[in-house]
Amino acid sequence: MNGLPQENPPPDHELNPVARLAALAGSDMERVEALIADRMGSETELIPKVARYLVEAGGKRIRPLITVASARMLGYEGEGHHSLAAAVEFIHSATLLHDDVVDDSELRRGRRPANQVWGNAHSVLVGDFLFARSFMMMVDAGSMEALHVLSRAAAVIAEGEVRQLAAVRNIEIGVETYMEIIDAKTAALFAAAAQVSPILAGSGTALETALETYGRELGLAFQLVDDALDYGGLAEDLGKNTGDDFAEGKMTLPVALAMEKADADEKAFWTRVITDPSQQTAEDFDRAVEILNRHGTLDATLTAAREHAARAVSALDAAPSNVWSESLAALAEFVVERAY
Amino acid sequence: MNGLPQENPPPDHELNPVARLAALAGSDMERVEALIADRMGSETELIPKVARYLVEAGGKRIRPLITVASARMLGYEGEGHHSLAAAVEFIHSATLLHDDVVDDSELRRGRRPANQVWGNAHSVLVGDFLFARSFMMMVDAGSMEALHVLSRAAAVIAEGEVRQLAAVRNIEIGVETYMEIIDAKTAALFAAAAQVSPILAGSGTALETALETYGRELGLAFQLVDDALDYGGLAEDLGKNTGDDFAEGKMTLPVALAMEKADADEKAFWTRVITDPSQQTAEDFDRAVEILNRHGTLDATLTAAREHAARAVSALDAAPSNVWSESLAALAEFVVERAY
Repeated sequence: MNGLPQENPPPDHELNPVARLAALAGSDMERVEALIADRMGSETELIPKVARYLVEAGGKRIRPLITVASARMLGYEGEGHHSLAAAVEFIHSATLLHDDVVDDSELRRGRRPANQVWGNAHSVLVGDFLFARSFMMMVDAGSMEALHVLSRAAAVIAEGEVRQLAAVRNIEIGVETYMEIIDAKTAALFAAAAQVSPILAGSGTALETALETYGRELGLAFQLVDDALDYGGLAEDLGKNTGDDFAEGKMTLPVALAMEKADADEKAFWTRVITDPSQQTAEDFDRAVEILNRHGTLDATLTAAREHAARAVSALDAAPSNVWSESLAALAEFVVERAY
Repeated sequence: MNGLPQENPPPDHELNPVARLAALAGSDMERVEALIADRMGSETELIPKVARYLVEAGGKRIRPLITVASARMLGYEGEGHHSLAAAVEFIHSATLLHDDVVDDSELRRGRRPANQVWGNAHSVLVGDFLFARSFMMMVDAGSMEALHVLSRAAAVIAEGEVRQLAAVRNIEIGVETYMEIIDAKTAALFAAAAQVSPILAGSGTALETALETYGRELGLAFQLVDDALDYGGLAEDLGKNTGDDFAEGKMTLPVALAMEKADADEKAFWTRVITDPSQQTAEDFDRAVEILNRHGTLDATLTAAREHAARAVSALDAAPSNVWSESLAALAEFVVERAY
C-alpha cells in the first residue's frame, strides 16, 4: 500500500513529504491500516470486495495521516486516534463511492469507478456501509465531541455536493460561491480530520481552532491545485485524467476566474462547452487551456493555493514545535509544490 | 401529518393502535416532529425540499413512536428520547431515499419516488445528509451506547440491502436466507429503535434485551405482512402498489415457501417471472396469486407474522405494566391485524 514502510525504504531525504510523514507515522499507520482492513469486513461477500476495490486503490491516506500526525504532535498517548483516522478514511471512501454515482465519471484514481464495475446500487449501499462503520469506529474512540465534529463534517460535505450539482454546467456560478462549495465539499473533512486530534488530546479550544484552520486551508490548497492540474500537469500523480473536469462541464476556479475576464466570444465559448459538454469538439480543450493561460487564471489558481497552504503552515504556530509539526508544515507546502 | 393529535380528534376507542399510541405520545411526538423539521433544514435549498418530500409523505412514524413509547414505559424523564427518535426516523428516511436509487421502484408511499423527481444524485446526497444529521442528533442525546447500537444497525441495514440485491431475481434464495435478509434490512432498525430507550433510561441489560427483541420481532411481523399484502390486500393503507414486489422480481416469503412446494411447471413459472420480470405477461400476477393461495403460502406468511408479533408482545413481560406497555403490545398486534 502506498506510503507504508517497505522492506527496503529509500533514504529519508529522498522521500516526498507525504511518504516521509507516512514513514514517521509508520507504526500508527499500520494500526490504522489494520483497522481499515478489519472494519470493511462483512460476511456479505460483495461488501469487502467493493470496499477494497476503492480503499486499496492507491489513495495516499492523507486525511488519516493528518489525524495521526496531529495527535502525535500534541503528545496524545492513547489509541483513539487510530479509530478516528480510520473513520475519517471511511467517510472519504464512502463519499467517493457516492460521488461515482453522482458524477458518472469514467476514471477514479486511474481505474474504472466501482459503479461501472458493480453498478450504482452497490456503490450506494457499500458507501452507506462504510459510513455506518465509520461511526462505529468513532464510538470506539469514545469522544462525543469528536463524533460531533465528524458527523457535522459529513453533513456539510453532503451540502457541498448538492451545491456542486447545481454548479455543474452553470457558468455563472462565480468565484465566491465556488470557494464556498469546495470549502464544504473538500476542506470540511480535512478540517475535521485535524480538529479531532486536539479534542482527543484535550489540548484546549485554541489548538482546536488552530488545527481546524490547518486542515481547512490545506484542503482548500489541495482542491485548487487539483483544479489547476486538470488543465495540464502531473495527471498520473493524482490518478486523475487531465481534462476530466472540463469534459464533465465542471466549474472550477480557473474557469470561474476566466469568466470574470471573458469578452463576448469567450463567454460564448465557455457557455457552449460548460453548459452542454456533450457538444465539445476535439479542439475545445486546447482552446480552453489557451484562454486560461492568456488570462493567467491557472497561475492565479496556484497562487491562491499557495496562499491557503501558507495559512495552513501559519496555523501550526500555535502548536508545539517538533518533528510532527515540521512534517505537517512540509505536507502543506508539498500539496502546492507538486503542481510545479 | 398522520398520527398527530388533530383539532377534533375522534374518540379514543375509535382510533387504531398506531393513532392511539401517537395520541398518547402526543406531546413527545410534537417535540420529535419539531426536531425532524428543524434538522432537515439547510441553506442549500434543495436539501429540505427533497427531504420534506419524503419525510412528510405520510410515513406513520412507527419507529420513533416505538422509541418514545419505550422510553416513557421505562419512566425515562429526560429529553434524549426525542433526539434518538428523530435520529431513527432520519436513518429510515435516508434508507428510503437510497432504496429508490437501488430499487428503481415506481411508487413510494403512493407517490413518485424522489429520484424520479430530482434524479439519483439528489436522492443519494440528501440521504447522506439525513444520515449525517441523524448522527448529530444522537450526539445531542449524549449516550455513546445508543450511538453504538444505532450505528451498528445502520451497518447491518446496508449489509441486508446488499444481500437483498443478490436475492432479487434469484428464485433459489430459500426461506432461511430470506429471513436473514429481512432481519437485517428491516428488523434491525426496529430493534435499535426500541433498544436505545432502556439504554437512555439506564434500565439494565435484561430490559435492553427485552426491548431489542420486541423491536426485532415487531419488525419481522411488519415485513412479513408487507410481503403477504403485496399479493392482495389493503394497498392504499401501505402506500404501496399490490404487485410491486412481483413486478420487480423480488423474492419474498410467500414465493420462497411456494418454491418449496412447486412442481416442475410451477418452478418453470417462478423462474420465468422472477428471473426476468420484464417478460411478465398481464396474466402472470393472477397465476402467481392462484399458486400462492393453492399452496397456502400467503396464509403461512401471515401465520409466521402472527407468531413474530406474539413474541414481540411476550418480550414486554419483562417491562413495567402500564399504559405504554399496553399500547406497545397493541401496536404489535395491530401490525398483523391490518392484513385481515
